[in-house]
Amino acid sequence: MDEQVCYPRVKNIGLRGVTVADTQVSMVNGEKGELIYRGFQIGDLAKYCTFEEVVHLLVMGRLPNETELAEVTELMAGSRSVPANVLAALSCHEKDANPMDVLQSMVPYLASQSRPKGDDKDSIRARSVQLVSQLATVMAAWQRIRSGEEIVAPDPSLGHAANFLAMLTGEPSASEYAKVFDACLVLHADHTFNASTFAAREISSTRASLHASVAGAVGALSGELHGGANARVMAMLEEIGDESGVDSYVKAKLDEGDKIMGMGHAVYKTMDPRATILKELALDLEAKPGSPHYVALAEKVMEATQREMKARKGMDIYPNVDFFSAGVYHNLGIPTDFFTPVFALGRAPGWCAHIIEETFGEAQEKPAIYRPKAQYIGDYCGPTGCVLPPRDER
Amino acid sequence: MDEQVCYPRVKNIGLRGVTVADTQVSMVNGEKGELIYRGFQIGDLAKYCTFEEVVHLLVMGRLPNETELAEVTELMAGSRSVPANVLAALSCHEKDANPMDVLQSMVPYLASQSRPKGDDKDSIRARSVQLVSQLATVMAAWQRIRSGEEIVAPDPSLGHAANFLAMLTGEPSASEYAKVFDACLVLHADHTFNASTFAAREISSTRASLHASVAGAVGALSGELHGGANARVMAMLEEIGDESGVDSYVKAKLDEGDKIMGMGHAVYKTMDPRATILKELALDLEAKPGSPHYVALAEKVMEATQREMKARKGMDIYPNVDFFSAGVYHNLGIPTDFFTPVFALGRAPGWCAHIIEETFGEAQEKPAIYRPKAQYIGDYCGPTGCVLPPRDER
Repeated sequence: MDEQVCYPRVKNIGLRGVTVADTQVSMVNGEKGELIYRGFQIGDLAKYCTFEEVVHLLVMGRLPNETELAEVTELMAGSRSVPANVLAALSCHEKDANPMDVLQSMVPYLASQSRPKGDDKDSIRARSVQLVSQLATVMAAWQRIRSGEEIVAPDPSLGHAANFLAMLTGEPSASEYAKVFDACLVLHADHTFNASTFAAREISSTRASLHASVAGAVGALSGELHGGANARVMAMLEEIGDESGVDSYVKAKLDEGDKIMGMGHAVYKTMDPRATILKELALDLEAKPGSPHYVALAEKVMEATQREMKARKGMDIYPNVDFFSAGVYHNLGIPTDFFTPVFALGRAPGWCAHIIEETFGEAQEKPAIYRPKAQYIGDYCGPTGCVLPPRDER
Repeated sequence: MDEQVCYPRVKNIGLRGVTVADTQVSMVNGEKGELIYRGFQIGDLAKYCTFEEVVHLLVMGRLPNETELAEVTELMAGSRSVPANVLAALSCHEKDANPMDVLQSMVPYLASQSRPKGDDKDSIRARSVQLVSQLATVMAAWQRIRSGEEIVAPDPSLGHAANFLAMLTGEPSASEYAKVFDACLVLHADHTFNASTFAAREISSTRASLHASVAGAVGALSGELHGGANARVMAMLEEIGDESGVDSYVKAKLDEGDKIMGMGHAVYKTMDPRATILKELALDLEAKPGSPHYVALAEKVMEATQREMKARKGMDIYPNVDFFSAGVYHNLGIPTDFFTPVFALGRAPGWCAHIIEETFGEAQEKPAIYRPKAQYIGDYCGPTGCVLPPRDER
């Protein structure tokens, strides 16, 4: 393992293309359009597994058998009630607070009463499962609080996805809605070293706690270049309105040098496998009478973008995970400013799995604190430093 | 700028030695023991400048003249009162919560009412100064709340350091205490791409907000390999008790393969310039009648560690910033579990300066979201994925 690796300019490219660590959690093949969680293709997982199974796969490291699935399901359901002081703190937020700020702030609150306390792998795994469960409670409760409605008590008889929708909307959700949302959570659960996962690993490399690391990851996901993109796809579709407005919108955006939200990906050079599945899920939802339709409009945007990018830059471009998730979330009754928090609820088990891997060095010889170098290009006046001018001479 | 850079194994070394970006904020020369903030030597800044001046230097990009210093001083003093809902949320924490969890949770709360709102550089600079000021209020208030004491109102006539000590302890502090604490804040204000600063930059590269990025940095600083080390130095000195216990303690620790807390640094290969200054400050404080003495004990630990490391590994080792700061903080009346939060209060302007640099690309051609690669070393069963076994066959 003593290979030399050479890079043309590592600086200022956001570490793009630089391999920083080994991992066993997931793999993306951008050329082939593959996403693998611990050996399993995302398409199979979304089709055949519940979110609870995927939480077990990512956090515990293997698919659960019947007994293990019952255990993880019970642990998640049993962790849904959050301590009263956490709900009290939640109520202190301004009603118009950014929901991602709300989510980030609550993660450290959840640390205090998280159990079991130990620093061993089993304890951290159990706290991870608990945290994944509680994040959903916190966000559902926040939607109720900011809307001036009663918080809905969790229902331990429901799966994680169905329970979240019920707590969010105050109504039991149709089973097909819960199934679609469950698949959305599975699709978002991991994606190797994206910016939020890398933040989680980087923070935990200092031996910071699970909660401190996840809170940092929530911060990274909030950025509009990362998790914030799905809400902006929705805003775009609403701005365009109907199919007649697509061509002029796409051309005007590209003329201004802007991107079309949800189109293109840093890693995938072909169809994002998650987008393919999300489009199917979106069509399933739209089949329900009275549902708003977005897929046809989104496809027109996709085609216009592909056509323009090919003509302008000779470039093939494909929709990413955010492109069709927007319409799905909208049809599930999720408010647009909750799209990114919902992404976080799905991604949380991936963050936890990566934190555990970073902490215990499962895929590394020895975990090392991240401490890169920077090249100083500012003033330097030699070992004595620049002369400090008196205040009246500045 | 198209140089080829080759590394023997970038993977799994925490990016040690890998230059990831350009910066104008600060520079460390580990060979010479130099630390520079925007051209100025740390020794000069600690001796001649207040923390307010250094906040201006780091966040605004230059040393303030008299008018600018008055402005930044007024902005900091005027921002000390935090909104009532933030104090209410603070009161919701468990009394035995980890103070770094408390600090991390409050940063996103402070986002809502932070002003001015704009995304331009001046607005973000103003919000940075406000945040640096408010973090001190929040931590002082938390000490009062968890001790069952009244929160002390900020005193706008005091400097940042003196006001924090007064709000923390409930008593006006002697001016020499305030001066020493002010210097401590200056010494901790920046240190290039350490793990928390890198986390702040990495998070903000997604276009996450100032507050979301700083909250992530607080998380990274909480780790015992990073900001958590100063509290562990204090625990070590208290465990050793007196000079007669030094040799056996150091030998036993090294025999077990442990490190001596506060000794050695990833970057400095000579004396950390901050440690030199902190030792002087510690001696100043100990000169006050009735003050506990730690410097002599710490020096014995230093000498024993240096002797043993030389004998065992032929290695020179030097104290870092945490080694003498522990005794200083203790003599200033700061509780041991507040040492790391106090580190955060000092480091906050550095985080903000780096976030601004990352956001506006001051030192880069074009800021790019951090998205490194990982090498997948887990199961892979070809493009169809591993066969998903039914639950009863797992």
